[in-house]
Amino acid sequence: MPDYDVLCIGNAIVDIIAQCDEEFLETNGIIKGAMNLIDTQRAELLYSRMGPAIEASGGSAGNTAAGVASFGGRAAFFGKVSNDALGEIYAHDIHAQGVAFDTIPLKGEPPTARSMIFVTPDGERSMNTYLGACVELGPEDVEADKASGAKVTYFEGYLWDPPRAKEAIRQTAKLAHAAGREVSMTLSDSFCVDRYRDEFLELMRSGTVDIVFANSHEIKSLYQTSSFDEALAQIRKDCRIAAVTRSEKGSVIVRGDETVVIKATAIKELVDTTGAGDLYAAGFLHGYTQGRDLQTIKATAIKELVDTTGAGDLYAAGFLHGYTQGRDLQTCGDLGSLAAGLVIQQIGPRPRQNLRREAEQAGLL
Amino acid sequence: MPDYDVLCIGNAIVDIIAQCDEEFLETNGIIKGAMNLIDTQRAELLYSRMGPAIEASGGSAGNTAAGVASFGGRAAFFGKVSNDALGEIYAHDIHAQGVAFDTIPLKGEPPTARSMIFVTPDGERSMNTYLGACVELGPEDVEADKASGAKVTYFEGYLWDPPRAKEAIRQTAKLAHAAGREVSMTLSDSFCVDRYRDEFLELMRSGTVDIVFANSHEIKSLYQTSSFDEALAQIRKDCRIAAVTRSEKGSVIVRGDETVVIKATAIKELVDTTGAGDLYAAGFLHGYTQGRDLQTIKATAIKELVDTTGAGDLYAAGFLHGYTQGRDLQTCGDLGSLAAGLVIQQIGPRPRQNLRREAEQAGLL
Repeated sequence: MPDYDVLCIGNAIVDIIAQCDEEFLETNGIIKGAMNLIDTQRAELLYSRMGPAIEASGGSAGNTAAGVASFGGRAAFFGKVSNDALGEIYAHDIHAQGVAFDTIPLKGEPPTARSMIFVTPDGERSMNTYLGACVELGPEDVEADKASGAKVTYFEGYLWDPPRAKEAIRQTAKLAHAAGREVSMTLSDSFCVDRYRDEFLELMRSGTVDIVFANSHEIKSLYQTSSFDEALAQIRKDCRIAAVTRSEKGSVIVRGDETVVIKATAIKELVDTTGAGDLYAAGFLHGYTQGRDLQTIKATAIKELVDTTGAGDLYAAGFLHGYTQGRDLQTCGDLGSLAAGLVIQQIGPRPRQNLRREAEQAGLL
Repeated sequence: MPDYDVLCIGNAIVDIIAQCDEEFLETNGIIKGAMNLIDTQRAELLYSRMGPAIEASGGSAGNTAAGVASFGGRAAFFGKVSNDALGEIYAHDIHAQGVAFDTIPLKGEPPTARSMIFVTPDGERSMNTYLGACVELGPEDVEADKASGAKVTYFEGYLWDPPRAKEAIRQTAKLAHAAGREVSMTLSDSFCVDRYRDEFLELMRSGTVDIVFANSHEIKSLYQTSSFDEALAQIRKDCRIAAVTRSEKGSVIVRGDETVVIKATAIKELVDTTGAGDLYAAGFLHGYTQGRDLQTIKATAIKELVDTTGAGDLYAAGFLHGYTQGRDLQTCGDLGSLAAGLVIQQIGPRPRQNLRREAEQAGLL
């Protein structure tokens, strides 16, 4: 039986990333910060209006798998691409990161999924996803040995959008639990929660899912409340562990009555110019006097929010890496914050740094 | 007759960009800093060894066309893609930048060209180019109205690698000169110069080319000398204007006996930590007190060499934009330095900033 730390299951998507202004989102009816599902016709329309772009492998759970592997964890991935150029790019990138990925590609149409991601000047990303080959992911793609052999299986709520992926999830969860493993999910997106609220709650309450990742919008949507505290109180009862991210406020991890509060990486938005130079010097000298290498010193000194894409995915990667290495919840959360803090300082959904090295330098591994 | 400022002709290439260490280049026999031509088999081998990558439209003259358009110039491009996924990406990006691009795509094989670009920690890029559909560019792709209608035609020396592109160049140059226009070229790469030295010299000495862009390695290769000054003395005689870039030393523009020296954008490599914080504060406050917006202030304050890809192409873009707007050589060179300085502070070959705005803020336009 192969031995993995984390098996991730998700839509296998290539991101097409461009900058735009706020007005573009309004003019084109794109819900800001959300994952907007689109069909072929709308994909063509939006692409024709999109500025010059770059392409990078993405997809929520795929990003998490890449993150776990970058931390040095043993990661595997199930997801459906087509045997086309974007599918080759997707498979290359996840293999090159050291993730086991053996889902058989679709022959021919529909093509590999793509998401047009528009990044506004505030760093927020608004996604427009054409699911393509992802609609063909089904229970026949479940590799039983990986499902049984991974300490934690992690899947995205987005998988309720394609028609048969949920069957693959239920089958994987059964195999995992039968082998004494744990199952986790991310709620993915508040609109996604709105589409599948009852099913997500059933997954949690039936024990199909042990660990839930969400952001504050998603748990509020899940429990249809405007109160974060109330939503947090409810999710304590519905799953064994919940890790809830709150953007610049960090995250909260709850397990029964236990509550662990995690700080976010401090990102300077440079809105107030007072003391910026001083802070730079302070950060720089701190890194320097701690004997860090120059790359780290620079990262310590200059932190700028560029693109939030992948923040939640990388938080989950850090958390799950710590969790499957037997670390306490505080360390799991700190590893999540570290990875999320790095990915939002660059364009693209998977950090270019070696996360293991970053975590070691931060004293977390 | 359509009216363009700059018509660019080049290999239409999608870049696949990843980081690597110095050892990787050695192990794989990649000549550092050069454009290495590769065949299908080697492309597959290198891709299998390449780390996780991102994709971006590239190609030397294509980058220049995009740069001219970003400065607000009217740019056109001739180059051959195939009607495949990468070809669509290429066409999208150059159209989205506002460049007129109407070369008919190849139907079927070979596929759109790609260049695997490995970026070492010092920011240097080493390219491995599979020419694909570019080998099909020929005189039938010359659009006579654009050739006659552009103030300056600009082509890359790299076009001597595919078999028939040089015929397209000679035909375009004839049309341009017949219409009283000017023709320019870049020497592209010192190894490329070595392959086609006699032909490049003939292009210059016959007056087929009026303006030459090169870096110091390329002109030394052209004249087979180790002395930059000697090479510079020779190129004065062989073309009307030569603009020679010298990395961090800036550039030199010569026109007959006239010599214009241009500074490079100062890029802090952070190798010596002394005063880094002070410099940051100084740069920041300078921008702030000049009333620049925060984006500019940040750019003023923090300049870091990340990836040299596109530096020469964007220098040419800045120069040609100034030149076709009737600016003096000093301003042309400063515009080149500005654009080159921006593109090397990011991953990818085309700067994400609006170059017109950057130039206006720098007081150059």
